[in-house]
Amino acid sequence: MDIDIPEVLAEMQAMFAEYERALVTNDVVVLQELFRKDARTLRYGPAENLLGWEMIAAFRAGRSPVGLERTLQNTVITTYGRDFATANTEFLRGSRHGRQSQTWVRFPEGWRIAAAHVSLMPAPGNVP
Amino acid sequence: MDIDIPEVLAEMQAMFAEYERALVTNDVVVLQELFRKDARTLRYGPAENLLGWEMIAAFRAGRSPVGLERTLQNTVITTYGRDFATANTEFLRGSRHGRQSQTWVRFPEGWRIAAAHVSLMPAPGNVP
Repeated sequence: MDIDIPEVLAEMQAMFAEYERALVTNDVVVLQELFRKDARTLRYGPAENLLGWEMIAAFRAGRSPVGLERTLQNTVITTYGRDFATANTEFLRGSRHGRQSQTWVRFPEGWRIAAAHVSLMPAPGNVP
Repeated sequence: MDIDIPEVLAEMQAMFAEYERALVTNDVVVLQELFRKDARTLRYGPAENLLGWEMIAAFRAGRSPVGLERTLQNTVITTYGRDFATANTEFLRGSRHGRQSQTWVRFPEGWRIAAAHVSLMPAPGNVP
């Protein structure tokens, strides 16, 4: 299996950037579209477990569009073959330090997120 | 792409079970082995960001083996083609409610985790 084939990696980097643009601008239609429309798709968020595309879409539609700007660091995007990729990044938003993990799969309709997990680092001193 | 090919799904369910066995018994050698030995492999834990196999292996070696038992719920394992899979589960450990996400890839050496993310739900009333 070839890892990080340049043109596949470039595709995934573009998808990741598009997702980030949609996130910080609260482009709900794109955010919904980039998750695979399937009951097996899931997203664990900072305080919610969304099982299936319908739950993810409803969460997006109901989210406050305020204060979504963030800075990314230590982003790691890796492609495996031509149809599979992982995208992981830390983010800083105000005083919060979070992590975002995505698994992307290429389907007939294009690259889509099959699973995602977003969480915040515990506040200092608040060891889980 | 075929999703959840029965024999591939069965393989992945067995890998997931083996990981869980290794986790709750603190079988450090197996836990280290099941992560792909590569600098791009990463694991976001409840309170740590481990970038690269070396950091993951060191974390495992230094972890307390006490109190690792847990109960799983809402586990979702999905395979994409014959070489890729996602495994997501919630877990309960004492009063803690967590989530574990893994992305698995089949390499020449076998199925290995390429990326993982583990986090705890915020304590009630402690909205992030």
